[in-house]
Amino acid sequence: MNAPQIPHMQHIGVLPSGTLGTIADVSGVTVGHCTLDQDAIQTGVTVIRAHRDDPYRHKVPAAASVINGFGKSIGLVQIDELGVLETPIALTNTFGVAAVAQAQIRAAIASNPQIGRGWPTVNPLVFECNDGYLNDIQAPAIEPTHYAQALDAAAASFERGSVGAGRGMSCFDFKGGIGSSSRLVSAAGHDFTVGALVLANFGRLPMLTIDGVPVGRELALALRKQAALAATTKPEQGSIIMIVATDAPLDSRQLKRLSMRAAAGLARTGSVYGHGSGDIALAFSTAWTVAHEGDYIATPPLLNDARLDPLFHACADSVEQAIVDALWSATSVTGRDGHTRLSLHDAVPDLEQRLKQRNA
Amino acid sequence: MNAPQIPHMQHIGVLPSGTLGTIADVSGVTVGHCTLDQDAIQTGVTVIRAHRDDPYRHKVPAAASVINGFGKSIGLVQIDELGVLETPIALTNTFGVAAVAQAQIRAAIASNPQIGRGWPTVNPLVFECNDGYLNDIQAPAIEPTHYAQALDAAAASFERGSVGAGRGMSCFDFKGGIGSSSRLVSAAGHDFTVGALVLANFGRLPMLTIDGVPVGRELALALRKQAALAATTKPEQGSIIMIVATDAPLDSRQLKRLSMRAAAGLARTGSVYGHGSGDIALAFSTAWTVAHEGDYIATPPLLNDARLDPLFHACADSVEQAIVDALWSATSVTGRDGHTRLSLHDAVPDLEQRLKQRNA
Amino acid sequence: MNAPQIPHMQHIGVLPSGTLGTIADVSGVTVGHCTLDQDAIQTGVTVIRAHRDDPYRHKVPAAASVINGFGKSIGLVQIDELGVLETPIALTNTFGVAAVAQAQIRAAIASNPQIGRGWPTVNPLVFECNDGYLNDIQAPAIEPTHYAQALDAAAASFERGSVGAGRGMSCFDFKGGIGSSSRLVSAAGHDFTVGALVLANFGRLPMLTIDGVPVGRELALALRKQAALAATTKPEQGSIIMIVATDAPLDSRQLKRLSMRAAAGLARTGSVYGHGSGDIALAFSTAWTVAHEGDYIATPPLLNDARLDPLFHACADSVEQAIVDALWSATSVTGRDGHTRLSLHDAVPDLEQRLKQRNA
Amino acid sequence: MNAPQIPHMQHIGVLPSGTLGTIADVSGVTVGHCTLDQDAIQTGVTVIRAHRDDPYRHKVPAAASVINGFGKSIGLVQIDELGVLETPIALTNTFGVAAVAQAQIRAAIASNPQIGRGWPTVNPLVFECNDGYLNDIQAPAIEPTHYAQALDAAAASFERGSVGAGRGMSCFDFKGGIGSSSRLVSAAGHDFTVGALVLANFGRLPMLTIDGVPVGRELALALRKQAALAATTKPEQGSIIMIVATDAPLDSRQLKRLSMRAAAGLARTGSVYGHGSGDIALAFSTAWTVAHEGDYIATPPLLNDARLDPLFHACADSVEQAIVDALWSATSVTGRDGHTRLSLHDAVPDLEQRLKQRNA
Repeated sequence: MNAPQIPHMQHIGVLPSGTLGTIADVSGVTVGHCTLDQDAIQTGVTVIRAHRDDPYRHKVPAAASVINGFGKSIGLVQIDELGVLETPIALTNTFGVAAVAQAQIRAAIASNPQIGRGWPTVNPLVFECNDGYLNDIQAPAIEPTHYAQALDAAAASFERGSVGAGRGMSCFDFKGGIGSSSRLVSAAGHDFTVGALVLANFGRLPMLTIDGVPVGRELALALRKQAALAATTKPEQGSIIMIVATDAPLDSRQLKRLSMRAAAGLARTGSVYGHGSGDIALAFSTAWTVAHEGDYIATPPLLNDARLDPLFHACADSVEQAIVDALWSATSVTGRDGHTRLSLHDAVPDLEQRLKQRNA
Repeated sequence: MNAPQIPHMQHIGVLPSGTLGTIADVSGVTVGHCTLDQDAIQTGVTVIRAHRDDPYRHKVPAAASVINGFGKSIGLVQIDELGVLETPIALTNTFGVAAVAQAQIRAAIASNPQIGRGWPTVNPLVFECNDGYLNDIQAPAIEPTHYAQALDAAAASFERGSVGAGRGMSCFDFKGGIGSSSRLVSAAGHDFTVGALVLANFGRLPMLTIDGVPVGRELALALRKQAALAATTKPEQGSIIMIVATDAPLDSRQLKRLSMRAAAGLARTGSVYGHGSGDIALAFSTAWTVAHEGDYIATPPLLNDARLDPLFHACADSVEQAIVDALWSATSVTGRDGHTRLSLHDAVPDLEQRLKQRNA
Repeated sequence: MNAPQIPHMQHIGVLPSGTLGTIADVSGVTVGHCTLDQDAIQTGVTVIRAHRDDPYRHKVPAAASVINGFGKSIGLVQIDELGVLETPIALTNTFGVAAVAQAQIRAAIASNPQIGRGWPTVNPLVFECNDGYLNDIQAPAIEPTHYAQALDAAAASFERGSVGAGRGMSCFDFKGGIGSSSRLVSAAGHDFTVGALVLANFGRLPMLTIDGVPVGRELALALRKQAALAATTKPEQGSIIMIVATDAPLDSRQLKRLSMRAAAGLARTGSVYGHGSGDIALAFSTAWTVAHEGDYIATPPLLNDARLDPLFHACADSVEQAIVDALWSATSVTGRDGHTRLSLHDAVPDLEQRLKQRNA
Repeated sequence: MNAPQIPHMQHIGVLPSGTLGTIADVSGVTVGHCTLDQDAIQTGVTVIRAHRDDPYRHKVPAAASVINGFGKSIGLVQIDELGVLETPIALTNTFGVAAVAQAQIRAAIASNPQIGRGWPTVNPLVFECNDGYLNDIQAPAIEPTHYAQALDAAAASFERGSVGAGRGMSCFDFKGGIGSSSRLVSAAGHDFTVGALVLANFGRLPMLTIDGVPVGRELALALRKQAALAATTKPEQGSIIMIVATDAPLDSRQLKRLSMRAAAGLARTGSVYGHGSGDIALAFSTAWTVAHEGDYIATPPLLNDARLDPLFHACADSVEQAIVDALWSATSVTGRDGHTRLSLHDAVPDLEQRLKQRNA
């Protein structure tokens, strides 16, 4: 089930990667999965923890860009208004959103019993993609406990590919799922890290572009006959969720700008933000927090907008890299009604060789 | 539990009301409640049916204005992108959103088993307010079945006040809840109806303004000592959901414009869209539908924007009237920890007399 | 031509006013007018200076809410993205926007010759209303020099009413124009000032509401026959620009929230944000600045959102008061084709008496 | 000064181009330039005519996506609200916006003298980029008459490259300017055309990507020493305006969706929507019009959103192609202070050969 330890196919762009090569290179950020893998149930939950302290009492600045709003997330209305994140970020399948949101509410109340009484309610944040090709999404299989398990499992070291919320996802007609990456930049004389984690479930084969090479167009010809890719003629019903973390001191307006650059990384892989694809990016900063109570006039550090360009490049590159990583890390999965998605590796065993030739 | 048959305190504005004096004056629109009233559980679900046919296969144009986004609704991201409503509209308490959304998904799948498989997933739409003062919101008490009950109960004739999602709501430190109203207008030579339904859970007593009269300011002095209004010193944690229906032929861009006028009606009652108040308006039209499949080039009727002013007036007036109606229709409720909210009638038995004097 | 020194008709709401009772109560803010009053030319320019230092090198945080976007302002796209104001704010008639924008560019280049060369270009900010009833707007009469004159005239003490950009404006079928006001609040243990300045050019008589009293409805009956108000049957083609200043330490996201509360003050006067009315609010803070160069990681003071409610009330009240002030301060004007707008005082000499009676 | 008749370097994507290979393949759309080429004055105006009839009386549906709002356009506020275009679209340099907007107003009044009197005012629409490297932008040289000249010159056949508003623009440190392209698609059983015209003034050499090949990275090494490219170390201060036309029957909500796909085409050329780059896309449809007066309930044809994907692909591809076309069509220009921008052809004479090799 786990992704083999394959080195990254190729490094996107010129900015260096962090040590781990994942979103966890942003200090303090951890990721956990709960994976359901039983016959027609091929789904799960992935949690990204953005907060070092209690998420409700010490909120982190955040903002989202809805690139194409064919999506059923919960939580963005309040983030747009208040610019803060007050729960861990959860990813799951479309019909699992409610169960996970309920679990987030329970967890927040457990830590802060005043929520919904003396204190305001808590704003759950759950993103989703539709894994209905491999997973019996109508079951629905996701329960609140799966969120708790993913949360407990959160660590700086985590698997990618066909795990957690990525278990049943498809990408460019191959097996998709969780991908991650990071980039190191310097801005205004300081070193910062940008990390991305994606839940990749979008794209049709002919669009696939890896580091500028229209791999999909060529593969589509070669693979046209293979049974496992028969679904390529169906209209796109995918989506991608792109989570961007940084330790640069940005406010929510700036994070909205940063999150928008995920659209550039996404486009480079071949996406045109298809009608049926819920393409959403959320960015947060770990550089400062907003107190729920007390500290009513704070003085957070804020980077001047004129110094954002390196972070914008890092966002685009890390999102593009994370999408490639999702494809690269995924393993083949068979699920509902015997549907199978081959991993890129299984479908195109000589892919690495093809790409090297092409980029020579 | 039901509101007494008191005639409307006074008619807001100069436009006439429809026959029923509720959102159901817009032909085809029905409303149903499921009310939970047992000790500390004082909450419920209200459903507004906007569709004559299957909501998923024959979507209605819709749009929302987020006046203050301190709210936890689900469904607005997709409505913003696609401009259509594909489920009935549900209202409930903040921690009941997930259960109701799940029920909406189940209902949609029951009618259209292709959803999430051959067809895209369905976009649930649930709005909420926090009824935690009267209701044990942390229970949480709302189950998917409560949505089904409210849906089944939907009819053109429905109760207002302390019912359905309004059961535990407070408004201007009185008992709030469900209010409704309608207005008849003429535009471009045609007659149209605008109807409003609100879930009113906002405001502190001193702000209350009824038809321009600062009733709350005066009452606040008079009532300062009453135990039942002791909560007036707490910060606002309310919200209001405003649903606006019309049979005028508008598209989603125009409906967004229409929904924004709810902010005018709301302001006239004393609200300044408080920080902690999730103030959201959604407008839909019953004049035409968008087919899920087939009919790929349609020719819907569309009113010219230059003729929208009468509808804008009707929206503001009907929302203002619906808020007053919520106060007027509510009955006193005692709930969690013995908390009580007196209805406006119980708290100010001579209100009608006061207002008449004032407006003489 | 100048407004007589009439005391405010009545004080809106319960918050106290500042000493001057204008936007200039926000320390450092000044206002200047250039008024053109010659036969058919009844128009002008009004400038609000938000910056203590060079506006381009020391930008102030700002944000706008477009309540109804039937307007031709210039500058909002960049303010939305960057959240800062880098010129004085200018108001004029619709066809004067270009001339004033050009003047702003010239002024910015004069102070900073690197603009458009080594440095980025400058973002002019000009708002407008259509004064075509009284003014020969097609002339067009506004020249860049009028902006310079208004800028030079900026002071803490300034006239209101039929002056500057307000010279030719109409409001509720009376003479409109410039109005201003301020409110003092306490938030998070600190004292803050909120000031408003409006260019009021909206509304039809029957909608006019002053402090909750539907004055317009009554007057419409009484005045129906007067020639000077014959235009009441024409569709609304007005607009209102609402500038909100504060010394509270807010960022642009928070200022957007603050500016939205202008919609509440506006609604209380009778507006439903008519289709043809460009209703736009802009808020800025004088508490901190953003350096054009250097100081790339700043630590501005920021108020916690949970303490914004007093400022929201102050915004709504001061905007409502400023609109009443515009009516109250205006003098009657005769312009193009002999069109006349009577001031509220001239049209309804006994207005004060009427209102007192009504509010007794 | 004119671009040599060089065939397109390569065809982006798999969709076929229209006959002309420009935005004028969308029937009825024409383009005209006014080019200023005298010593330090290297600038101009480009006009895109979207309307077959009087633009004010027969408006076309339109919408814009502000991808990065570091820009000084005029007109987007009203387009966002009303969803229609009521003037030709004008492009010019940043400090020429006011002169061109004034010219648009004059032209509209000339055709419709009621504008600003019996009728509402007209909404000018002018986009801009900063050509200050080659052009003495502070002059400023653009006069209203230049708009009139460009408008008069509008035709289905028009030049690209260093002409009109593109005269002084730079792109990836080469000479940029006007580029155009088109794509033919089939949707819902009908054939449609999508055309793009860009004013390309963005990017730094190392980012340049042509059809997926990171040309810029390689060239940056090779060209590092050339004097003409010495400016590569300066921060980006560019911008790009992307105009997308289609004959598909879309409303403004759908056109907003379409315009957003320009971001995908832009990203593929190497852009990450840099901080200082005003990246704005506007899309319009020629399939139906909105009457200024009369016809108050229309029945426009509207394509179902579920059939938009082919148009989305066409938008992304045509924008990417148009950017390449701008580089390809441009001729070298020397302007202010002897600054020179070499065309891609002059700077890299063997580019075609390089690309062919790479893509073999």
